Amino acid sequence: MGRTKQQTPWKELRRLIDQGESDRLDEFVRQIPDIEIPHTLSLLGDEALTELLHVVEPETAAVLMEQMPGVRAVETMEHLDREDAAAILLELPSSEQADFLHAMEQGDADAILAEMIPEAADSARTLCRYDNDVAGGLMDIDYLAYPHNFTATEVIRDMRTNADTYRDYVVQYAFVLDEQERLLGVLRLRDLLLAEGDRPIVELMQGDPLAVGDFAPLDELRSFFLAHLFFGVPVTDAAGRLLGIVRRAAVEEALADRSDSAYLKTQGIVGGEELRSMPFLLRARRRLAWLSVNVVLNVVAATVIAFYQETLTAVIALAVFLPIISDMSGCSGNQAVAVSMRELSLGLVRPSELLRVWAKELSVGLMNGLVLGALIAGVAWLWKGNPYLGLVVGAAMALNTLVAVSIGGTVPLLMRRLKMDPALASGPILTTVTDMCGFFLVLSLATRFLPWISG
Amino acid sequence: MGRTKQQTPWKELRRLIDQGESDRLDEFVRQIPDIEIPHTLSLLGDEALTELLHVVEPETAAVLMEQMPGVRAVETMEHLDREDAAAILLELPSSEQADFLHAMEQGDADAILAEMIPEAADSARTLCRYDNDVAGGLMDIDYLAYPHNFTATEVIRDMRTNADTYRDYVVQYAFVLDEQERLLGVLRLRDLLLAEGDRPIVELMQGDPLAVGDFAPLDELRSFFLAHLFFGVPVTDAAGRLLGIVRRAAVEEALADRSDSAYLKTQGIVGGEELRSMPFLLRARRRLAWLSVNVVLNVVAATVIAFYQETLTAVIALAVFLPIISDMSGCSGNQAVAVSMRELSLGLVRPSELLRVWAKELSVGLMNGLVLGALIAGVAWLWKGNPYLGLVVGAAMALNTLVAVSIGGTVPLLMRRLKMDPALASGPILTTVTDMCGFFLVLSLATRFLPWISG
Repeated sequence: MGRTKQQTPWKELRRLIDQGESDRLDEFVRQIPDIEIPHTLSLLGDEALTELLHVVEPETAAVLMEQMPGVRAVETMEHLDREDAAAILLELPSSEQADFLHAMEQGDADAILAEMIPEAADSARTLCRYDNDVAGGLMDIDYLAYPHNFTATEVIRDMRTNADTYRDYVVQYAFVLDEQERLLGVLRLRDLLLAEGDRPIVELMQGDPLAVGDFAPLDELRSFFLAHLFFGVPVTDAAGRLLGIVRRAAVEEALADRSDSAYLKTQGIVGGEELRSMPFLLRARRRLAWLSVNVVLNVVAATVIAFYQETLTAVIALAVFLPIISDMSGCSGNQAVAVSMRELSLGLVRPSELLRVWAKELSVGLMNGLVLGALIAGVAWLWKGNPYLGLVVGAAMALNTLVAVSIGGTVPLLMRRLKMDPALASGPILTTVTDMCGFFLVLSLATRFLPWISG
Repeated sequence: MGRTKQQTPWKELRRLIDQGESDRLDEFVRQIPDIEIPHTLSLLGDEALTELLHVVEPETAAVLMEQMPGVRAVETMEHLDREDAAAILLELPSSEQADFLHAMEQGDADAILAEMIPEAADSARTLCRYDNDVAGGLMDIDYLAYPHNFTATEVIRDMRTNADTYRDYVVQYAFVLDEQERLLGVLRLRDLLLAEGDRPIVELMQGDPLAVGDFAPLDELRSFFLAHLFFGVPVTDAAGRLLGIVRRAAVEEALADRSDSAYLKTQGIVGGEELRSMPFLLRARRRLAWLSVNVVLNVVAATVIAFYQETLTAVIALAVFLPIISDMSGCSGNQAVAVSMRELSLGLVRPSELLRVWAKELSVGLMNGLVLGALIAGVAWLWKGNPYLGLVVGAAMALNTLVAVSIGGTVPLLMRRLKMDPALASGPILTTVTDMCGFFLVLSLATRFLPWISG
């Protein structure tokens, strides 16, 4: 094994910042290996980071911004000088400019836009009108487009003239537009390359291009790119006018962000993101928001136990099995929640298909309930030498496994139907209901069979 | 609101398959909207699906394969005729061919390779040597490359001759190689387009191209694409020979798959994937693998309770608080696990930085422990009118929250250091330790203060 203990460039970076050696900083940052950058920046305090971004070239600062987790990059951007922020923003692809402006406080965003050249600010404002999970919010607006009556020579001349501007464009083909800026076709550079100079590009282009609407949701884009091996797809408005291009990679990235954030939410990270570089009070408060809901739900669930204090007093061994049944039902139910979340996000199941999902869960729950019930019954029997105690806790475990998978499988669909966030709400609902039900099953069965088990 | 109940094309598709109307199937499938395909296919049984893929054109079948979740696509591929499978595979980009062959049983993969044209089979075999989370396993091997002594005219002539072959290539620039096939530079079509015909391409290319090694791990690729706004990066072997290109989108996709699979594992889906279309026994068995480990750990943790039966008998109210403390510690700990998993995957924290993470968790745990402890102390006091009972359960809750965040924050790092899967192992370790500790804290404190709380 023995990867040797790695020296991170953090300390030297910190020293250069503290000693104000700003002329060396740009060069120093640029020679840090890409893979070291996230870790190095995470060790840098907010003030040092702001100073660093102020001192280096906007292009370098943009690279650093990209390597930071989104929330920290946004927060850092808000604390920069407006001028610095505007310069850095301009170095990012247009879709990411919009992401930043979207995520910032309105006032900060406006102040930064005011510092940008009006043209760039206008484009950024346009993109900000879209949510960042629809085509309009994910598209880039730097692309090559030419009127349909241009010839190959004219296009090549334009490309030559503006070569420097186009160099950074992320899409490698040009679009052909009619008088109303509606998308007519796609012109591949390769075809342009092979064509005679005086032919109009309308004859060289691929007609009837596939496109998506500006409000096409992320899932539609996902399906589009699964069905077509394209790099990007043009985005048009309702009138067919070309607005921008969504790259395949932008869609993949948005999907990854969505599932990362869903994972964090299921585990009780309310905003869908927490970094340990955030202020401690913010982290504590956001975690507490979730915990305090759960503690209330837990107390509610546990009241079931309070109603059976006599049974518990008679058979104190039951107190050992209550947490086991609560915990195992949580496990079984969470498995079903996870599969439902996954099937929803892949589009394999519709929120309305509760019955289909329930049927699929029941068979698995029956099987696993029987196995777990038998196991726990065996433990109880062996421990107390009382087969009836085994039967009671085993039956409760088996039945509650059925309940848990039923709820776990269907609640995410139900949440989606009710326009609630299944990642955030499914877990607490699941554990509360299965806890109540599990406690009730153990204790009511035990009460019924009290004469046999309290021996 | 009120999206009208959507008719899925499933029934009609099923009818066409059952009635053997194979000539209409290709057309019918092609007109299903992309976004409907995953759902439609998920309702189709395995036999009907195999029949469908057999009947339609390989190109259409490849589109369907792309829309299926990976595990189902692989399984389906294994059950197809070898000839069908080979024809469909050839329609996929080379990196995805390798994914399929990697995931299949060795025997199936060999049989399918035997059906492919030898050249394609050889390339696929080469890619299969790499794991699918390193550059070699993610790269595409269809790219344009020319010897350094070619002229612009010669390159253009070759492109014209092979236009049909190159049409499907996913990367839009050409590479320049020396006599040993080592990568010298990148030739952009745009520069080719603007050049005089007799200039050698070595003068037109961008020299010193960035490249990654064939064993560069996914995280390195992630950092690379964050730092550079490229579509793709060339992959070279140790000698600098060009092997292929990794597209940005392939990296984003692999990252998304990795985090989806990590999420499913944390929730107890052992293989990192389960679909309800899988056979019921397989699903039940895989879930049980996880549940049976947990039930054993749960029983172990609950034995702590068994040692304090006398205390419990004296203060039966404690039985109400045991599951609450167990559950709440699980919640607090899972939050910390989730943040650590996220920071590990973003490269913000190194597996060796246990102390740094622990310190960050302690402050949050102290704060949240005090709040939760106070809450639960209040509940206990109000319910039984006994402030000492409140103090006992409140103190246990506060202390155990500290324990939970400490373990939750550090265990994922520890697992990573021990080369174990943090997604799969962190949860059970967390709940077992915090349960034991929580039960011990409540019951031992209660035992010590028994005279005051058993009133």
